Amino acid sequence: MTLDIVGTLRTIVGDGGVLEAAELSKRSAGAYRFDTLKAAALVRPTSTQQVSETLRWCHANGVHVVTHGGLTGLVHGADAEPSDVILSLERMRTIEEIDPKQRTAVVQAGVPLQALQDEVDKHDLAFPLDLGSRGTATLGGNAATNAGGNRVIRYGMTREMILGLEVVLADGTVLSSLNHLIKNNAGYDLKQLFIGSEGTLGVITRLVLRLREKPLATNMAFVGLDSFDAVAKFLKHCDRALGGTLSAYEVMWQSFYRLITSPPAKGRPPIGQDHAYYVLVESQGSDLDLDGQRFTAAMETALESGLIADAAIAQSEEDCRAFWALRDDVGQVLQGGLPIVFDVSLPITAMEGYAETLRETLESEIGEHRLWIFGHLGDGNLHVVVQVKPMEYLALRPKVEALVYRPLAACNGSVSAEHGIGLEKKPYLYVSRSANEIALMRTLKQALDPKGILNPGKIFDPGPVVGGR
Amino acid sequence: MTLDIVGTLRTIVGDGGVLEAAELSKRSAGAYRFDTLKAAALVRPTSTQQVSETLRWCHANGVHVVTHGGLTGLVHGADAEPSDVILSLERMRTIEEIDPKQRTAVVQAGVPLQALQDEVDKHDLAFPLDLGSRGTATLGGNAATNAGGNRVIRYGMTREMILGLEVVLADGTVLSSLNHLIKNNAGYDLKQLFIGSEGTLGVITRLVLRLREKPLATNMAFVGLDSFDAVAKFLKHCDRALGGTLSAYEVMWQSFYRLITSPPAKGRPPIGQDHAYYVLVESQGSDLDLDGQRFTAAMETALESGLIADAAIAQSEEDCRAFWALRDDVGQVLQGGLPIVFDVSLPITAMEGYAETLRETLESEIGEHRLWIFGHLGDGNLHVVVQVKPMEYLALRPKVEALVYRPLAACNGSVSAEHGIGLEKKPYLYVSRSANEIALMRTLKQALDPKGILNPGKIFDPGPVVGGR
Repeated sequence: MTLDIVGTLRTIVGDGGVLEAAELSKRSAGAYRFDTLKAAALVRPTSTQQVSETLRWCHANGVHVVTHGGLTGLVHGADAEPSDVILSLERMRTIEEIDPKQRTAVVQAGVPLQALQDEVDKHDLAFPLDLGSRGTATLGGNAATNAGGNRVIRYGMTREMILGLEVVLADGTVLSSLNHLIKNNAGYDLKQLFIGSEGTLGVITRLVLRLREKPLATNMAFVGLDSFDAVAKFLKHCDRALGGTLSAYEVMWQSFYRLITSPPAKGRPPIGQDHAYYVLVESQGSDLDLDGQRFTAAMETALESGLIADAAIAQSEEDCRAFWALRDDVGQVLQGGLPIVFDVSLPITAMEGYAETLRETLESEIGEHRLWIFGHLGDGNLHVVVQVKPMEYLALRPKVEALVYRPLAACNGSVSAEHGIGLEKKPYLYVSRSANEIALMRTLKQALDPKGILNPGKIFDPGPVVGGR
Repeated sequence: MTLDIVGTLRTIVGDGGVLEAAELSKRSAGAYRFDTLKAAALVRPTSTQQVSETLRWCHANGVHVVTHGGLTGLVHGADAEPSDVILSLERMRTIEEIDPKQRTAVVQAGVPLQALQDEVDKHDLAFPLDLGSRGTATLGGNAATNAGGNRVIRYGMTREMILGLEVVLADGTVLSSLNHLIKNNAGYDLKQLFIGSEGTLGVITRLVLRLREKPLATNMAFVGLDSFDAVAKFLKHCDRALGGTLSAYEVMWQSFYRLITSPPAKGRPPIGQDHAYYVLVESQGSDLDLDGQRFTAAMETALESGLIADAAIAQSEEDCRAFWALRDDVGQVLQGGLPIVFDVSLPITAMEGYAETLRETLESEIGEHRLWIFGHLGDGNLHVVVQVKPMEYLALRPKVEALVYRPLAACNGSVSAEHGIGLEKKPYLYVSRSANEIALMRTLKQALDPKGILNPGKIFDPGPVVGGR
């Protein structure tokens, strides 16, 4: 008997809520993709109840379900097979509540990040998660992938901003864990299971998010440094001198700084292009005068002691925007070739050696290429970009991946700082996780989704489990 | 066949590592307990390997294991039955590594909190978890119970300070997940499972902890306010005006303030005793001059606008210590009766009504008693103390518990903000968690400890599970 997937889903969400396979060929597979969606159907529920009914039916019939948010992921974490059902949260985008006293927001999972940022701003509050794809990425997707972004050093990852979740489990059970409290030690903190599990353990339908008071004063500087040791020491200096207000510490190796401050890039260099390293440092405080004094003093003492070689301090909000525009002009890596983009993390003490080894091995084992390194150094997170000739991309990609990932094992680094594993990094998960860790992930998957219907094949393949069995 | 528990454990950890049942009657059951330990044996391993071998044998033989840290818990979370084995981490108290650049510490689980605080201080760093039992409580216990304490508003709970864990699972499997990175999205974040699970899912043997730069300037004030609305607004004011430096916001209802500032208490009132509410506010920053200016300005604007009625600003480190000594003089609740101590959390918007309802229901349903309320208001966490006559304690305790806990359901409060559930709050877990949440907790317990040997009966009893089964 053939299942009538489309027909059944239409009885659950209504006719307009289901797209058939043929219609999906008109939809892009994602923000950075050239292909289109493939699936048996795409279902767009408008309520948690509809998500629950959809999953209950798929579970009973062994139909695989891949959940979609804004499709801005970079690791093929939401790819579907032609026989799968795609469950899109695109019609669940209501901001249900903003409480300025408790400083919480309740949102449906399909709300785009920027929509919430803009809405809370009206209440003089801030939701401090921020990333380049803010206009498209959804809060449910941010939670499912534990998104990082620009201000982790101050506010943590998405995980730290989530107070409660409503999740639909594989069999359709609705787990309502909509905690609004900063402290709640009443049993296991179940939301942690679903944050960062990339849709493999449940479908997040609603979130309670922690809001912050809106910062009243931003200070920024673009700094040049002549050694990596200075980069590490300057981080400590800023963390101490700026107290709790340090909100970004972005590093760029020289080649990346030159790329984004030279034509054809639109940006111009705020300071000379001959330093070995550059740091974009930002503080967000409460008092324009006092915070400005403190920030300037911190830069001056660093200059006077020779810790940093040069610094341009932003004099206006326009300067701040221009500094961030430089950092965000990552698109320049598309000039003259195809980029292979990595997102790794490693201890700050290992970074210089890692970068040097990588430069040497790429030099000796890969032909013509360009290498750029930049990232959220305050969090130990580097983005590595290796650009190769388009014709050689497919042949070189696995070689480059091996050169980038393998040295991470020795320094306890991670193959994924913030992008997740998806399908793309699955072959390298073992670099950062032991056999027992992967076995325990499988134990959890088996316990929560024994039929394996939720985003199957992502992060890890089925295999041995552990835990007292 | 009778198991030779003591003999077998001695082959694993050596003769000196095991205490027999008779010897345990000389050991206190805990820091706030009048009884002594009871168990078949107490085993004191010195290595993860010994913990693993102990658990493997107990698992194979169905012997229950209760893990002990510093025994400073307040919810009977580490009580053992006479047939249980107690596994104490007291001989695993090595601080293995402090890395001032990466700002991480690696410690064995039995290290007392204060030992680490003192050690990192020598490196001009801070481990910001802080609580009254710092000298006795262990870091493994802090992790297993997700301890809170005085500075959650700034640094979060223990959960936010843990980067990696080594855990021994029920069957003796060693799960080494000793991540040192702030960002690591390589698959499920397994450590989250064990943090706050009160020893029911595994035995934490080693931790990687995130350190911070040591704060260079502390400012404090004792503030009087005449309405609860002002207390809530003043929190927002401080959070905004003090930027990222607000590090404590402790509230006291008038009766508690009078208790700790009147004889026989040693403390004297920094401001008059007639305000309805009192707040202890602290900021920790980086610059004595600038932070002091900002702190004073924040208090002055609050005074000028009428938001607060009075304020005493600490003029010295001695003043700061004296202010904290008042807050910490909780022992005064033992004067003239026996206290029943609660640790609840609820939305700030619901607090005034909750306190008023509680006052009224205690008045009408309980005879002679005293009620004090204080707590970490910045985190939504109130400590409620109801003092009754010693002779009536046992009879009144269940009644008082019901009056304190039941109203929390309606306002989405928690029966445990930071103390955990243990045995004591198990009957009230349902107030804060739904049937599906408790069922999922059981699913996890079943997956990780199917024989139920780890700290059995704590948090919840066995029962139905959920998750696609």
